[in-house]
Amino acid sequence: MGCELTVRPIGVVCNSLPGPERPDDWSLIESELLIDAHWTEALDSVEALERLTVIWWFDRREGEDVPMKVHPRGDQGIPLRGLFATRAPIRPNLLGLTTVEVVSRDGNIVQVRGLDAFDGSPILDLKPA
Amino acid sequence: MGCELTVRPIGVVCNSLPGPERPDDWSLIESELLIDAHWTEALDSVEALERLTVIWWFDRREGEDVPMKVHPRGDQGIPLRGLFATRAPIRPNLLGLTTVEVVSRDGNIVQVRGLDAFDGSPILDLKPA
Repeated sequence: MGCELTVRPIGVVCNSLPGPERPDDWSLIESELLIDAHWTEALDSVEALERLTVIWWFDRREGEDVPMKVHPRGDQGIPLRGLFATRAPIRPNLLGLTTVEVVSRDGNIVQVRGLDAFDGSPILDLKPA
Repeated sequence: MGCELTVRPIGVVCNSLPGPERPDDWSLIESELLIDAHWTEALDSVEALERLTVIWWFDRREGEDVPMKVHPRGDQGIPLRGLFATRAPIRPNLLGLTTVEVVSRDGNIVQVRGLDAFDGSPILDLKPA
């Protein structure tokens, strides 16, 4: 289990959310996925998808200790639960996973709705939901 | 976009599929997710989930050239489509993403059904589906 694997961002999230304040409702948030122009051709037909799954990086949480258990949604009223039974943003690998609504695409920029990532978060992959 | 990020496997897939032959129906395949014993406590409550999303690594595809477009499901009869509008297993970052059925858990071993990964594939994250 000791080996390291390397991933390289394919792009970055652009929106109006610098963090760390979270919006009341992420589902309304529009973001641009600014993908490296090298991959523009690989985005062909993404605009035809209703929903897209984005794998991104919780870059705001780098360097933090990873707990074994967390209170789901940070709510102290909910009993502690094993980290892998939650979607807490602090994890052994800082992989965020969100299914979003595709609004449009213009070249290497994909407009989406409902991405719960702060501005500047690295994007690692896009897949049809 | 040039920066590199490092991920470390949290475990490995164990099943009866050495590859590269694919089974007719992945949904019937049972696999064990052998998670590093360090993370056993973080698996608490995973057994209570009906479905789990596994992020894993397409290790069989390391070193291959990444195409901009592919025929979905490798079917030459389907027109070429942008890579990010498909789930092709050769991608800029070799991240596999599969939602599986949780069968049971025994300590650091999670038994699941429906994981389309070959034996030995590295596991990067587990999240509730």
